[in-house]
Amino acid sequence: MIKKYYLLSPGPTPVPENVLAAAAEPIIHHRTPQFSKIFMDTTEMLKMVFGTKEDVFILTSSGTGAMETAIVNTLSPGDKVLTLNAGKFGERWGNICKAYGVVYKEIIVEWGKDYPKEKLEAELKAMPDCKAVFCQLSETSTGAVYDIKGFGEVVAKTDAILVVDGISGTGATPCPMDEWKVDVMVSGCQKSFMIPPGLAYIAFGPKAWAMVETAKCPKFYFDAKKAKKNLADKTTPWTPAVSLVIQQKKALDIIAAMGLDGLFAHHRILGDATRAGVRALGLELLAEKPGNILTSVKTPAGIDGGKIVKTMQGKYMAYIAGAQDPMKGRFFRIAHLGYMGGFDIITALTALEMTLADLGYDFTPGDAVKAAEPILRESWS
Amino acid sequence: MIKKYYLLSPGPTPVPENVLAAAAEPIIHHRTPQFSKIFMDTTEMLKMVFGTKEDVFILTSSGTGAMETAIVNTLSPGDKVLTLNAGKFGERWGNICKAYGVVYKEIIVEWGKDYPKEKLEAELKAMPDCKAVFCQLSETSTGAVYDIKGFGEVVAKTDAILVVDGISGTGATPCPMDEWKVDVMVSGCQKSFMIPPGLAYIAFGPKAWAMVETAKCPKFYFDAKKAKKNLADKTTPWTPAVSLVIQQKKALDIIAAMGLDGLFAHHRILGDATRAGVRALGLELLAEKPGNILTSVKTPAGIDGGKIVKTMQGKYMAYIAGAQDPMKGRFFRIAHLGYMGGFDIITALTALEMTLADLGYDFTPGDAVKAAEPILRESWS
Repeated sequence: MIKKYYLLSPGPTPVPENVLAAAAEPIIHHRTPQFSKIFMDTTEMLKMVFGTKEDVFILTSSGTGAMETAIVNTLSPGDKVLTLNAGKFGERWGNICKAYGVVYKEIIVEWGKDYPKEKLEAELKAMPDCKAVFCQLSETSTGAVYDIKGFGEVVAKTDAILVVDGISGTGATPCPMDEWKVDVMVSGCQKSFMIPPGLAYIAFGPKAWAMVETAKCPKFYFDAKKAKKNLADKTTPWTPAVSLVIQQKKALDIIAAMGLDGLFAHHRILGDATRAGVRALGLELLAEKPGNILTSVKTPAGIDGGKIVKTMQGKYMAYIAGAQDPMKGRFFRIAHLGYMGGFDIITALTALEMTLADLGYDFTPGDAVKAAEPILRESWS
Repeated sequence: MIKKYYLLSPGPTPVPENVLAAAAEPIIHHRTPQFSKIFMDTTEMLKMVFGTKEDVFILTSSGTGAMETAIVNTLSPGDKVLTLNAGKFGERWGNICKAYGVVYKEIIVEWGKDYPKEKLEAELKAMPDCKAVFCQLSETSTGAVYDIKGFGEVVAKTDAILVVDGISGTGATPCPMDEWKVDVMVSGCQKSFMIPPGLAYIAFGPKAWAMVETAKCPKFYFDAKKAKKNLADKTTPWTPAVSLVIQQKKALDIIAAMGLDGLFAHHRILGDATRAGVRALGLELLAEKPGNILTSVKTPAGIDGGKIVKTMQGKYMAYIAGAQDPMKGRFFRIAHLGYMGGFDIITALTALEMTLADLGYDFTPGDAVKAAEPILRESWS
């Protein structure tokens, strides 16, 4: 039979067919009224997804570029900050700080474990000159979601700003930037935003903008003030990835039609079904507070975790993600993010069942589907 | 009649139809053997176009991001450099240096004027601690090309490195990096590389790599050492713009089939025909040494330069580019870059003739085409 390829990774995620096709439209110049209209419509809809009245800037870069943008525009070398390191991407906040001479204290949390706002409050009390707190909405390396609302309450009482990496989380799980007192939020286009990788998004609240004025970290390509000045002219400082912006407008049309609550509900249903399915196989989740972006599943005893990922990807062409260093082999990650439907979850679960059968795991084939089916079926009603 | 849109700007340039269609292929994950193969094939072919044995790194950014990459990876704050400012993009080298505390002396050259290597030699003698010389292969704001071969000879005798912005020039006009002793070369994908904007390319020669080891300018997203380390694993440090890389591979297949000399000949013929056409209308070129990338044409006396651009773009939908600040209205720019054929030049010239007729310029309609036709016709033989 034809062996189809299934993208079940937390980015890139599948792109709707009409959004893919939009990339094949003729390229228009980026300094034209035609493109400005698309660009500004996209920006407006991004504000809706971010839950902010502030400008959302479109960067041509990966999400990491937006993380760097957050740091270099708000801080100066020598500034003290706190970073929540509960996985690979929390660790990255610290690495970027280090590159720019920002002094960071890492709050190291075991991968998958939650972190209560009360502990953050205590950390902030112990560091009265803290300028910023960096964290993840959804830590993509574990699938855990964090209490951004609680962090917002705690950080708002201090002079620090709260900077949230919503690269995989924004749009998939609630995080209304303004309401939850998030000062800087970044995201990426290849997740719930449903387009191929290449764009990243960032917004700054008023408390963060005040810091932009005095921030001394050097920057040029990622200069937020230049982006703001150019946005007033309905354009970008540098040539943007035109075709990706056109695609983002099309994908946001889909999102606008279903509504932001609809997009959250979509992810919740897919997440519920996935969790029910893997639990029905006797498997355990890694995350204490698993999000609706991806589900990290612990490798069962006696099974080689590397082989699960290799078999899923290589034999069944179901492209889940493995655990990253230093946790390689300890768990695997099934994404339920962006343009996936209920039957894509069934595909993931049956590919997992077939894989576990191949590797000699003791279970009853069909149990995962049996558990997921009613959750999904109801959502069609 | 249907009014078609013609892209005659120096980037973005028209994209071949099969390359456009490639963006509509399903998105594959960037950490897979399938993508690695495409990525490495693309990298190899970029080396051919750059004329280098060194690695060419693919960045997800505009060309400006690659310019910043060149600076932050080779220099430290306080280092002294020379920048050739003969237009908007030469000026940008200085602006990026300023952002990173690099001390630059600008060699200011009147827009369009040439700059001989002997003068550069004298400047270098006067600045023995010069660490780098920054220039443009083709200054996109004027269409002038510079004597990179000569600059290479001169700079090679010193401890400085030669950094060339080939964003619009690479692939369109010869600049064999290794042979001409260019130490760092950057380029962009939306020019002669024939794909939509979003990727930039950069290569470092051995003299530049030695500087990378000690360069103290901060960087993270644009860290060349990280790019080098990841390229050894056939991947990128950050998620690349997957669909654009797939498109670049397709476009490079076209370039490989015609050969690099074929690509240069293509641009030379289009450039010759354009120059012959505009001169036949009694118009003057801006550039002392015009390149085959774009032709800047001086606004004739008595005609409003802004109206030429506005009429070309607005009425005839022939999207040429105007002159940038502070030269606005003084000239206009017709690109003959990338995926354009002979009849696209005829389109540009007839749109220009119609525009000039609209604005009351005194000339014989048809003269531009008459001059361009034999040049183009011969190239079909």
